[in-house]
This record gives sequence, C-alpha cells and structure tokens, in this order.
Amino acid sequence: MKENKYDNSVFFKKYSEMPRSKYGLSAAGEWEVLERVLPQLKDKSILDLGCGYGWHCKYAANKGASKIVGVDISTKMLELANLKNSAWNISYSCMAMEDIEFQEESFDIVFSSLAIHYIKDFDFLVRKIYKILKKGGSFIFSVEHPVFTAHGSQNWIFNEDGEINHFPVDNYYYEGKRETNFLGEVVTKYHRTLTTYLSVLLSNNFKIKNVVEPMPSEDLLNSVPGMKDELRRPMMLIISVEK
Amino acid sequence: MKENKYDNSVFFKKYSEMPRSKYGLSAAGEWEVLERVLPQLKDKSILDLGCGYGWHCKYAANKGASKIVGVDISTKMLELANLKNSAWNISYSCMAMEDIEFQEESFDIVFSSLAIHYIKDFDFLVRKIYKILKKGGSFIFSVEHPVFTAHGSQNWIFNEDGEINHFPVDNYYYEGKRETNFLGEVVTKYHRTLTTYLSVLLSNNFKIKNVVEPMPSEDLLNSVPGMKDELRRPMMLIISVEK
Repeated sequence: MKENKYDNSVFFKKYSEMPRSKYGLSAAGEWEVLERVLPQLKDKSILDLGCGYGWHCKYAANKGASKIVGVDISTKMLELANLKNSAWNISYSCMAMEDIEFQEESFDIVFSSLAIHYIKDFDFLVRKIYKILKKGGSFIFSVEHPVFTAHGSQNWIFNEDGEINHFPVDNYYYEGKRETNFLGEVVTKYHRTLTTYLSVLLSNNFKIKNVVEPMPSEDLLNSVPGMKDELRRPMMLIISVEK
Repeated sequence: MKENKYDNSVFFKKYSEMPRSKYGLSAAGEWEVLERVLPQLKDKSILDLGCGYGWHCKYAANKGASKIVGVDISTKMLELANLKNSAWNISYSCMAMEDIEFQEESFDIVFSSLAIHYIKDFDFLVRKIYKILKKGGSFIFSVEHPVFTAHGSQNWIFNEDGEINHFPVDNYYYEGKRETNFLGEVVTKYHRTLTTYLSVLLSNNFKIKNVVEPMPSEDLLNSVPGMKDELRRPMMLIISVEK
C-alpha cells in the first residue's frame, strides 16, 4: 500500500512547522551537500519525485531549468507547492512516485529528496527512472541512511542523566518495513542496506558519480542547538548516478 | 607510525588460532561474497596488500594467475605464508603497504583483505594503487565496515541478562584512530566514513563496480553458533573498482 501520511491533517500541520517547511532549502541540514552534487540545471528538464512543498522545483526554475515536473502523493503538499513555489515552467502532479508514466528518455534529471525510504520496491522505481532518463542524464536522491533506518526507533540511546550515549543499530540485514515515530505519528518507512541501494543502481546500468553522507553545514552546527550531535551518526545518504 | 601488531608473539599466536588462519578462505564469513566480486584471475598479475597467511595468493595461483606478489608488514605472517601457501609464481615481500614501489601499470589486479583499516592515509594509498594498475585493471578490497569501526568498542551492547540489545554507533563523522580490543590485545585501527572510502576512489578516477556489505554464507549461519547475530549489524565492506 502506498501510504499518504501527509494528507493526514494533524501530521501535515506538524510537518508544516518544521524549519525546512517554513524556510525552505537553507534550513535543511543536508542542502549544502546536496546542492554540490547537483549537475548544471540550466535548460534541463527535471522530474522531482516526492516534491513536497516544491522548494527544489522552484530552485531548479531559478537556475534556468527548461521544464520541471513535481510529483507528490499528497494533495495538501501540492496545494502548498502551488502557493509557495509556482513558476510558469513548473507543473505539479498528484500521484505516487511508483505510478509515474512518462515517455522514454524525456528527462535530463530525476531528483528525489527524502522520499524514497517511503517506497517499498526500490528496484521497480529505479527501472522506471532509468527508462525515462535521457542518455547521460542524472538521477540524484537523498534518503534516510541505512544506519538511521535499521533499528526502527530512529532515536538515540540515552544514559541515566538523559544524555546521549550512542545510536543503536540492529536488524541491519533484515530489510523492509519499519514503523517509526515521526512528529508524534507512526509512519511506515522501508529499511534497505547500503548494498541494496548501490547494487540495484549498478545492476540497472547506472554509473555511480557520488555517494555522500551529508554533515550539517558549519552554519547550522553553530546556530542550531543539538545539531553537533548529528556528527555522531549518519542520518542521510545522498547518491548521484548517471545513465 | 605503521603498527606491526602481528609480529607480537602473543597476538600472533592468538591470531593463528582463528578459524580463518587455520582453515583458510572457507572459514572466512565474507569469502563467498568476496569471491563473487573478483574478476577473472587467469593469466593476470596480482598484488595482494596485507596478504597475511597468503590464502588469497594461493587461491589466485590455483586460478591460473600469471604472477602474484604478496606484501605484508609482519615477518611472522610471511613465514607462515611461505610455509602454507607457496607456489612458483608467488613472491612474498615484507613491507608496509604504504611503502610499495612498483612500476606504473604493472598489475592487472590489486587486492586487499581486511587490512586497509590499519592504514592512516587512504588517499595516499589509493593514488599509489591507481598508478601501478594497468588501464582497465581492478582494485578489490575488504575493510571493517564504518558502522563497525565508528564507536571504537567493536562490541555489542548487552542487556542485564547478557543478551545482545543492539550495536552502538557513535562519533561517525570523527574519523581517525580507534584503539580497539582484538584477541585480547589493544590494536590501532582507523575509522573512515563510507563517504571517504567512496569519494577518495571516485576522485582518483576509479569507476565503482561493486559495493557490498557481505553477510555470512548460509553454511556458516547454520553451523557456527552466534553467527546469526551478524545479520544484526554490518561488520565488513567490500568494494571493487576499475581503472
């Protein structure tokens, strides 16, 4: 089943209060690294899978992309995207990313930010993406890191004084569903090993260009309380590949 | 400083009693996966960095490799290698792997099994390896997984009943020295993030062919007590790249 948690009003309200929802890319800890691995966007056709508020679509429009399609399963997300991040060459489309149907070789770039860990069948998605990408085109995505998704709690282990002791890893090779708490709600995510992420891409003939576990920027480390703890565990994984 | 722990008699004795020392490749949990990512060895020239007992060198000789050079920092290791795993086309050489000096483009394959986590400067080593590899040549290596080296203890967190609770990750982005207990002795290893392993290879113009976190084979899972716990954490990382 394709979960559409973001159309749940309570969840959506909480999500809308996160810094990255209110302030966009600059408030996202991984943006500095993600921006660095993006190819040139000028005159490129771009598909954003799980576009949410459309911050990345708008960024691409500002960088001179020729055509941008943002896809998201949540109508609430896309209402906000249309309101906050519209442009003449951005079109937002409401569907699950597994259901996309586009002509072969119709995009220069397929992009996805922190959405693919909601997808059950990564191989199915990658085969679709490969088909709709032009030769030499790029697929760039961020997901929650396998270290972050393995255990399921997505929470630190604390000591008796309430201080962080370490981050737990467990059931690493048992891939699949994890019911985890995000913004006070139970959300279903899918844990995959790093091996699976990379070997599915390689076996679908993608060439690996970058694999980066982003650290928060110097700015965020200095300005956001507790951000330094993010140097103790990898939380996200950014992968860019080329067809 | 290049540590040469294996020439310490007490440590070496304990190492010699490990299943992989006594019985060779078939007793190494990762061998099944490692063998699968190896290129054809027939008529190839091969350099094995940190060759230890020489099990992989002998394997390559049996597979028809034309020339095999095994390098190790420990004279004790190489004594055993000469005794157990010699062949007319294998030569063993005692030196630290950072100190290798070979002609440019003189090897088809550079290989290293569970030794590179003892090396401080990975980038320096990779540049050397790139130079001595022929065009189209392969570099294949296994190391302890960054998840396994980050915290430093390399041990599970147990509950009050002495059962495994989970595996700890900490200080992931703080790379460098870890003093860890191996066979009852303090051994110095170097923690590196996955990002560093892969980005150093990519920035040195290697093409990534395989990235695999090996699971123990079905046989070992069924026959060795406790081996199933190794499905709860990734312990090793195997990477193969091409020049």
